[in-house]
Amino acid sequence: MNLDTDRHRVLPGIVPDLDAIPADDTGGLEKSAARKELRRLLARLDELQVMMYAQGKHSLLVVLQAMDAGGKDSTIRAVFGPLNPQGVQVTGFKAPSSLELKHDYLWRVHDQCPPRGTIRVFNRSHYEDVLVVRVKSLVPEERWRRRYEQINDFERLVHDEGTTIVKLYLHITKDYQLERFRRRLARPDKHWKFNPNDLVERARWGDYRSAFEEALGRCSKMHAPWYVIPAERRWYRNLLVTRILVDTLEGLNMSYPKPDFDVEQIVLE
Amino acid sequence: MNLDTDRHRVLPGIVPDLDAIPADDTGGLEKSAARKELRRLLARLDELQVMMYAQGKHSLLVVLQAMDAGGKDSTIRAVFGPLNPQGVQVTGFKAPSSLELKHDYLWRVHDQCPPRGTIRVFNRSHYEDVLVVRVKSLVPEERWRRRYEQINDFERLVHDEGTTIVKLYLHITKDYQLERFRRRLARPDKHWKFNPNDLVERARWGDYRSAFEEALGRCSKMHAPWYVIPAERRWYRNLLVTRILVDTLEGLNMSYPKPDFDVEQIVLE
Repeated sequence: MNLDTDRHRVLPGIVPDLDAIPADDTGGLEKSAARKELRRLLARLDELQVMMYAQGKHSLLVVLQAMDAGGKDSTIRAVFGPLNPQGVQVTGFKAPSSLELKHDYLWRVHDQCPPRGTIRVFNRSHYEDVLVVRVKSLVPEERWRRRYEQINDFERLVHDEGTTIVKLYLHITKDYQLERFRRRLARPDKHWKFNPNDLVERARWGDYRSAFEEALGRCSKMHAPWYVIPAERRWYRNLLVTRILVDTLEGLNMSYPKPDFDVEQIVLE
Repeated sequence: MNLDTDRHRVLPGIVPDLDAIPADDTGGLEKSAARKELRRLLARLDELQVMMYAQGKHSLLVVLQAMDAGGKDSTIRAVFGPLNPQGVQVTGFKAPSSLELKHDYLWRVHDQCPPRGTIRVFNRSHYEDVLVVRVKSLVPEERWRRRYEQINDFERLVHDEGTTIVKLYLHITKDYQLERFRRRLARPDKHWKFNPNDLVERARWGDYRSAFEEALGRCSKMHAPWYVIPAERRWYRNLLVTRILVDTLEGLNMSYPKPDFDVEQIVLE
């Protein structure tokens, strides 16, 4: 299937214009063919994850960011749900606790980085420290401005020590968010997902967009790329994300470890 | 479907005779009907897990123990794999690290207990501290003997503070283990799962059986029951485990939280 993931990657140093990127892009693909391809890719991702676990050499960190209702939860479920739960862990970063606030903002993030052999998904991440923190002026500008480089340095360390990093921004429009909020309020079993404060954030859509654009532009690196994932067509979103992860893990050229014993010499009784 | 989970529960104070319990028990069920029922139960388990997450009041701790090749990994995959990875986490307990050995044996276990709203699966657990530790005399008998009561006290605390505990012993025979080891050695992509040391443990089958019997008998409580799961028929094992978990969570009478805002008053724009 002809799926160009590279055009969704943010080139290092280039600040993307999010309004100019269609959020309902489907790459010219058909839904039914895409679903079939997704099943194939999910099976391959599963194989690669088992191999990563067996080899115990690499780890994978997936950073997921989006505006509210951007589809982070549903992406996690669709792409990581089918994998072996022993090799995948999801860390959700919410507003920092009083203990976490006594540390630097990367302290709790470093603690949650994936050990070798495993995949970790960050549902929100240290990028909130240049997003919500910036939009709400939770720290002075001179502090959050330094964070882009601090984050780049941190990710460089983690990458150099064996963790492959992929960062995904799930891209939706303000109209689409409104539609999702409407659906949540229409279903009593989804009310718990709605928070009236979401509307306060929504009112600052433009500020968040600017903050995202700068974060993506300044922190997309060859070794830790940001992708802008058109997320209004879930089937395309899932396909694209899975393909990016499969390609990334294929690039590690992993193999099953050779046994450190002679299989022929083992006597079973 | 007529499935009596209660007969697999270890009654408090009764030491089970594992050799007398058939490991290939299928409860008189048919495989095809069981598979269909499993799908239904997995969907229900998924609903219950979402509700637990939404409500944020309860948590569930599932302790999995078995002899090598007893099927812990495949049970985790079959039963917890279909759930939302954000609400489920698996902790594997291996030989303690040098740091962990500087603490009491429950320190690392307490640290991994599930926060409210989530499910945690222990792949091996604090029970190793009365199993391998006992069989290999890693601490003096007077120390591991005290552990049954210490473990009961610890689980009582965790239970009283909101965590539901279910403990599952996956029951296989020594012959079945041999068969599983043969399969692992016959497949190069499974060699990494085999460790020649497994044969050293296998030679002590009787010692492990006795240790399991005492642990199950002394630590099965109404609020933290042990179940002996016949595990040689995977389809029955998966069905039984899922049914036990569904019944357990149903017993909590959970519901979606009521919104703390007036849905009618929300203006979306």
